[in-house]
Amino acid sequence: MGNDRYLNRTRRQLMKAALAEFAAKGFAGARTGAIARKAGVDERMIYYCFETKEGLYREVLRSKLAQEGHIVDSREGDDFATALVKGYESCSSDLQHVRMWLWEALDTGRRKIAAEEERRALFEREKAQIRRAQLSGHLSAAIDEDLLLLVRIGLLVAPAALPQVTRLVTGMDPDDPKFRRRWSKCLRGIAALIAAGGSPPHHRLRKASEHQEHVQ
Amino acid sequence: MGNDRYLNRTRRQLMKAALAEFAAKGFAGARTGAIARKAGVDERMIYYCFETKEGLYREVLRSKLAQEGHIVDSREGDDFATALVKGYESCSSDLQHVRMWLWEALDTGRRKIAAEEERRALFEREKAQIRRAQLSGHLSAAIDEDLLLLVRIGLLVAPAALPQVTRLVTGMDPDDPKFRRRWSKCLRGIAALIAAGGSPPHHRLRKASEHQEHVQ
Repeated sequence: MGNDRYLNRTRRQLMKAALAEFAAKGFAGARTGAIARKAGVDERMIYYCFETKEGLYREVLRSKLAQEGHIVDSREGDDFATALVKGYESCSSDLQHVRMWLWEALDTGRRKIAAEEERRALFEREKAQIRRAQLSGHLSAAIDEDLLLLVRIGLLVAPAALPQVTRLVTGMDPDDPKFRRRWSKCLRGIAALIAAGGSPPHHRLRKASEHQEHVQ
Repeated sequence: MGNDRYLNRTRRQLMKAALAEFAAKGFAGARTGAIARKAGVDERMIYYCFETKEGLYREVLRSKLAQEGHIVDSREGDDFATALVKGYESCSSDLQHVRMWLWEALDTGRRKIAAEEERRALFEREKAQIRRAQLSGHLSAAIDEDLLLLVRIGLLVAPAALPQVTRLVTGMDPDDPKFRRRWSKCLRGIAALIAAGGSPPHHRLRKASEHQEHVQ
């Protein structure tokens, strides 16, 4: 029992240190020695608990995907704009996870991505949510659900993927609370336009006609 | 004269090899020895021509920014959707340049970005184009020009920044011509919605003609 508890604690410590190391240096650049040192654990425990560096990477990612899965479930029923803004907020508050994905994109040496099935399953759930919103008429069906998901991910990840562009273009750091508020508001506006898909919903039509009267 | 020609050719060869090396490994990971070998040039020529690895990086980027500047100028008068689709096409056909930017985002060790003024100037020109389109009534002014530019960049760079997400979500590789056609079409649709900004077309037309009258 004491041994199980020790092993569980060791695994948690290693996974936390590994997340920081993979986020900082990517899979190829990460060193198991550095992870063990950060965790305050003997390096051999990595191999005992996870077999390989790849195994450790996979477990870190799986744990992040499980968290993400809960977030996706909790978004069920949210409209496209709310899901986008919440996605951006959870992305900005978990940059280590985002960086693991960004490193993968640049690491051309890797053959097969880790936890592929879990990732695919997560995206399938998100696509299914989008599809349901389209079928129920709350989201324009003019663009396929897979591309809409990619649009959503592209928009929510942009400031983290290109922080130097964010700084040069807006004059603000992506971590700046003021920037985060502005970007959230912008995403909400853009997502509402995409969701309406060119056909204004009833209340927007009404608002537009009120505006017309006001203008006349 | 012969010496100048030799030096110019050497610079070009080094910059081409450096672009490939920086795109593959980022600034920190790139090795001047590897660049010199790829270029078929003595490594000391890097220091003779560019002083430092940083100097070489800056020149490669400046040359890319100059190309990009011509593209931005040639887009003058294009609507928001056309500019987005063209931006995506030029980005997909110059992945080495895109990867240099993506590496920078992950390289937390670097203090000051290279060619900062040239980059800022390029983005300022793009923002001015967007602002002009907003003032002429061709583009909704509901979202500020700096955020609209960041939206545009986020959308056009998404498949290159997250190729594994693109594969998992759409089942296609970002380089697949079929994917590229689908994404271009999707971007055009999204950009048209953003440009209209929720106001029904006749309203925008009227606004535009009022603006014309005002101008006359």
